[in-house]
Amino acid sequence: AYGKAIDQRWKGPSIAAKFGAVATICRSMTTDINDFPHTGSMTYFDSIPQKIPACAISTWGAEYLSDLLREDPQVKFFLKMSCERLPDEKSFNVIGELKGSEHPEEIIVVGGHLDSWDTGDGAHDDGAGVVQAMEVIHIMKSLGIKPKRTIRAVAFMNEENGVRGGKKYAELAKQNNEKHILAIESDRGGFAPRGFTFTGPAEKREQLKKWKPLLIPYGLYDFEQEGGGVDISPLEKAGVPVMELYPDPQRYFDYHHASTDKFDGINKRELEMGAGSLAALIYLVSEHGF
Amino acid sequence: AYGKAIDQRWKGPSIAAKFGAVATICRSMTTDINDFPHTGSMTYFDSIPQKIPACAISTWGAEYLSDLLREDPQVKFFLKMSCERLPDEKSFNVIGELKGSEHPEEIIVVGGHLDSWDTGDGAHDDGAGVVQAMEVIHIMKSLGIKPKRTIRAVAFMNEENGVRGGKKYAELAKQNNEKHILAIESDRGGFAPRGFTFTGPAEKREQLKKWKPLLIPYGLYDFEQEGGGVDISPLEKAGVPVMELYPDPQRYFDYHHASTDKFDGINKRELEMGAGSLAALIYLVSEHGF
Repeated sequence: AYGKAIDQRWKGPSIAAKFGAVATICRSMTTDINDFPHTGSMTYFDSIPQKIPACAISTWGAEYLSDLLREDPQVKFFLKMSCERLPDEKSFNVIGELKGSEHPEEIIVVGGHLDSWDTGDGAHDDGAGVVQAMEVIHIMKSLGIKPKRTIRAVAFMNEENGVRGGKKYAELAKQNNEKHILAIESDRGGFAPRGFTFTGPAEKREQLKKWKPLLIPYGLYDFEQEGGGVDISPLEKAGVPVMELYPDPQRYFDYHHASTDKFDGINKRELEMGAGSLAALIYLVSEHGF
Repeated sequence: AYGKAIDQRWKGPSIAAKFGAVATICRSMTTDINDFPHTGSMTYFDSIPQKIPACAISTWGAEYLSDLLREDPQVKFFLKMSCERLPDEKSFNVIGELKGSEHPEEIIVVGGHLDSWDTGDGAHDDGAGVVQAMEVIHIMKSLGIKPKRTIRAVAFMNEENGVRGGKKYAELAKQNNEKHILAIESDRGGFAPRGFTFTGPAEKREQLKKWKPLLIPYGLYDFEQEGGGVDISPLEKAGVPVMELYPDPQRYFDYHHASTDKFDGINKRELEMGAGSLAALIYLVSEHGF
């Protein structure tokens, strides 16, 4: 529902400006009723010159404001914002690699993103994904597994503000003529895993589904949904099959882009289950190709 | 793993007493490393007259004690306990019922238990189950559904200390010649549901599995596991097919029988998903029989 609900935040300010608004206040796009505003990206239309301030208020705040407006349609709202846009700084993707023993030229990417929204610590979005990608390499090394194909853990930079790490990665992959057989992202929170989304050729989804008997004992049952991840979308555009770890989604918006997205919102077992799930799948791809 | 791990707590005191122990200290049977002791039932063997004190210490406490014992095997442990066994008090099961419109004599039971271990509030064990059982009735009424078969929500008393509510319920069911076609329990915590366990005739499991296409969109995929619930085990012994809501198990032992089992450990969406899952299944059973 999130994707369908964010148009007010994304387009609202430009459309409201057209009708003379001086600012927009948007109700947080989150499932919980609480005091933690949930933020996210927005845009200004080039066709509308007025770039008015836009903010999100918490769900409790929005309920309160609605009540006040019902009582008195002339109620005044005092808005003060201190945010500003600073110049870009140079930053980097961080990459670790386990070279394949038989087909080193065939690369499997597993990744999350290093940056996070400014409200919390980015524990679920996307510290979890970064840690899980690293843990895939760690699990392989701990078990003494020498994968047949190359496994590359990538902590992508700048997912939230333009996917520039993901774009640069795909650009360099093309430039270096690298062969990526699969890219997997974890960017839906560190919750108990339920499956993998997939976008790519139908026969590869069939191959994924053939592994279901090996994966279902760990609670991985859903391989039907479409989807990759934002960071790997430039690889997807270049024709690489993509997947995303699909964790239980019930609690994600209790944390996503809110000040609640801190380390204490992570459950260690759930986080580890996700890392183990990624490692199991990547091991299969590494052994059997994809 | 819990069932296999609790023999130290359950039998340990009697066995240790035989070898001259004056008390036993057991490491909490929980998955987390924290400061919250996890408690639970134990027994004294009739064959061993010494009934020595027995306690559980937290996992951190146990790690610390192990360290101390490694440094100094003569380390002394001072144990003071203030618990006592009070006389029994009379208490009751609490039952609500929606009478069936076509087959009122066919009863579907859905329940949890009212009592809880003394450390926390019993939010997951088993406030969640009680609330979900009530919510099944509430959902049916809210949607204006008149079920064909009778749906009975039961808050069983005294699960933790002898299943006396469950036993009394089954005793009265027999005495009143009631026909129970299915009993479902929710006593594994209020987490996001993954399926239903089942114990009963194979053809009824096949019937349950035929409903999978209707249930899998809500994340219910696992109908393979054996099991009912403690409160409905006396009904099971009387030949009633039994099920238990199977929620995601990763976090249960962060709360179970510990002071952490409080209301703030419950996620509203997850709790509601469980209630909705129970209502969906019970509606199918009520419409089509079982």
